[in-house]
Amino acid sequence: MTVKTYSFQINTNKNFEIIDITSKINGLIDIDEGIVSIFSKHSTSAIVVNENESRLLNDLEFMLNNLVSDKFSYQHDRIDNNAKSHLKSFLLSSSECLPIKNSKLALGTWQSVFFIELDGPRHKRTITLTMVGE
Amino acid sequence: MTVKTYSFQINTNKNFEIIDITSKINGLIDIDEGIVSIFSKHSTSAIVVNENESRLLNDLEFMLNNLVSDKFSYQHDRIDNNAKSHLKSFLLSSSECLPIKNSKLALGTWQSVFFIELDGPRHKRTITLTMVGE
Amino acid sequence: MTVKTYSFQINTNKNFEIIDITSKINGLIDIDEGIVSIFSKHSTSAIVVNENESRLLNDLEFMLNNLVSDKFSYQHDRIDNNAKSHLKSFLLSSSECLPIKNSKLALGTWQSVFFIELDGPRHKRTITLTMVGE
Repeated sequence: MTVKTYSFQINTNKNFEIIDITSKINGLIDIDEGIVSIFSKHSTSAIVVNENESRLLNDLEFMLNNLVSDKFSYQHDRIDNNAKSHLKSFLLSSSECLPIKNSKLALGTWQSVFFIELDGPRHKRTITLTMVGE
Repeated sequence: MTVKTYSFQINTNKNFEIIDITSKINGLIDIDEGIVSIFSKHSTSAIVVNENESRLLNDLEFMLNNLVSDKFSYQHDRIDNNAKSHLKSFLLSSSECLPIKNSKLALGTWQSVFFIELDGPRHKRTITLTMVGE
Repeated sequence: MTVKTYSFQINTNKNFEIIDITSKINGLIDIDEGIVSIFSKHSTSAIVVNENESRLLNDLEFMLNNLVSDKFSYQHDRIDNNAKSHLKSFLLSSSECLPIKNSKLALGTWQSVFFIELDGPRHKRTITLTMVGE
């Protein structure tokens, strides 16, 4: 049994951007079997698992804009003009804890892991991987 | 310290269906203390923890239908007519990582673990359990 | 490699209340590196990670009240008058699994861990910490 920790950084180019990080994570896994915490160190981003289909990812952006509406004024915007980015992050959450088998993520056929930028563009978004297993 | 991995399958009978998998999971746990990743290998389903009370579970279905509204048209529906199922999965998430104590889930009195079918009926939905502990 | 389990209790004073539990958790961590499951044993509460800024936390309460609207009647309210509290808990989730490094939570600069009371005031809300690592 062992613990392994890695981190990597991403630059984002748009205000809302979805980046598939599955192969990046698989390239860093160096245990055979166990679990991995995938954690974004930022409170205006998210880590999620779903299907990598471009129209579905557009639908996700549409849904989030509908749930965290532009119609309202938010108090946090008086300090830092990104309340909606934080609120979307609360709904999606900033981490996932996933299974590893045969030295890679044990995902289903139609699943990918995504980093979601909710307040970009940003330089050097940091994601940490903490693996526990053998 | 050890890692143990199991999986099991569920057949669902309705488009939206909530299945209590707490006792199924407890029957598969074979470590005394640690954590377990409970992961659905499907992007139109979810794993959640809450109270097993039938009217509340009806309210959950109602809320999800309200948040991911039929009023809108979704781009993913042109490819595969289940955009709303994926979007509900994004909101609930496809996994939970929970504590194990005395060889079972260390839940509160009013908590159960549920598999939520969001795009059924389906044959052989797969859930994996990855336990780390001793 | 080892497993360590702790729990602590919180009394809440309001119906909706957000309590920063980051320093409480850091004080209980006694492994150097690994992951920790932070789990609320209650189905009308949540554990989340985001920025500790008071206006943002007001915005979170506003958003939740908007998403789980007072306009509707919920079936669970016939049994126990707290359906909306459970539904908000489904959206936020009752646990987080986070990385530990150098014997504390490996959070980003603007991140804190919060316990969210969704159905208070309550006496003795229990949060469990299960750490796996070395």
